[in-house]
Amino acid sequence: MAYYSPSIEKLVESFEKLPSIGHKTAQRLAFYMLDLSNEEVKEFVDSIINAKKNLKFCSKCFNISDTEPCNICGNPKRDSSTICVVEDVRDVVAMERTHEYNGVYHVLHGSISPMNGIGPDDIKIKELLSRLMDGSVKEIILATNPRVEGEATSMYISKLVKPLGIKVTRIARGIPIGGDLEYTDEVTLTKALEGRSEI
Amino acid sequence: MAYYSPSIEKLVESFEKLPSIGHKTAQRLAFYMLDLSNEEVKEFVDSIINAKKNLKFCSKCFNISDTEPCNICGNPKRDSSTICVVEDVRDVVAMERTHEYNGVYHVLHGSISPMNGIGPDDIKIKELLSRLMDGSVKEIILATNPRVEGEATSMYISKLVKPLGIKVTRIARGIPIGGDLEYTDEVTLTKALEGRSEI
Repeated sequence: MAYYSPSIEKLVESFEKLPSIGHKTAQRLAFYMLDLSNEEVKEFVDSIINAKKNLKFCSKCFNISDTEPCNICGNPKRDSSTICVVEDVRDVVAMERTHEYNGVYHVLHGSISPMNGIGPDDIKIKELLSRLMDGSVKEIILATNPRVEGEATSMYISKLVKPLGIKVTRIARGIPIGGDLEYTDEVTLTKALEGRSEI
Repeated sequence: MAYYSPSIEKLVESFEKLPSIGHKTAQRLAFYMLDLSNEEVKEFVDSIINAKKNLKFCSKCFNISDTEPCNICGNPKRDSSTICVVEDVRDVVAMERTHEYNGVYHVLHGSISPMNGIGPDDIKIKELLSRLMDGSVKEIILATNPRVEGEATSMYISKLVKPLGIKVTRIARGIPIGGDLEYTDEVTLTKALEGRSEI
């Protein structure tokens, strides 16, 4: 590929490294960049540099944030006696979108996965336990992903937390809204059955 | 959307402005950026800044280039008596990929399109004509896109160039390789018939 001049070549390569961006899209993005005004390019580049510079992890919940503590931990209207445990920063956003949850979070930054060499000490479990020590927390909601690793992580945490006399709950696993019994796998269906509630 | 902290919000917005990048992909790219090391981010950002800074248009053919003249115009092995006229910088790359063309190019940077208020003076037609003045050019290959605007542009240029005694050709329009007669539109089929050649 020496059809382009070196600077374009380099730019296309840069974009190609991004996830879900193939060669064609990388080319399109590179040429789009070259068509932008200098101010627009500066704005784009600055948004990357600033995000990289300003963002850090909240020392309480390990959510990514511009502020310390993050705007959820720092919000006095949030119920700090309920902690929702999630694997990833993006999961916080997913939960927030429901507008149904008013507690705080704890981001594990991963899940226990012996296959990938990730043990309990590699994710923020110790940090979760230390948040429980002052006795103000009443409920832990385990919202890790309903996969092998997430289930194992939830199980592990519940075994540590339950002896402290704190209520531990797990989000329901079942058929998604709009889903179809016919096309639902048996594991999900089993979970849906187990998790049935009286109406 | 106030689920993210401001710096992420801004970063996601930046990516969302790019063509063919939706909200979900923008989020994925933003988080990917945050996961990169500072050096990797610097490399990405520099590739944009450098491309923007270094690239200019070749004063001869108006291809985008790091050098002046561009590496095609400046290559003594290329046959400068044949000029392939294309609409866009990307079309040069498309032609180069064939490895079949050894002449030079002229990038019009658009096509005549009265509907969009683009007349002959808005694209690099004058500049093409001035390249023909010294009499060294023997053939002009019109490789504008086979659409209304591209055809009109080719027609316009051929009317200007032919009186100068220079050979003017138009790339063949027909059924693409791997195509299917049954599914070929009638305009393409007509062009394929008109352009038939003896075997």
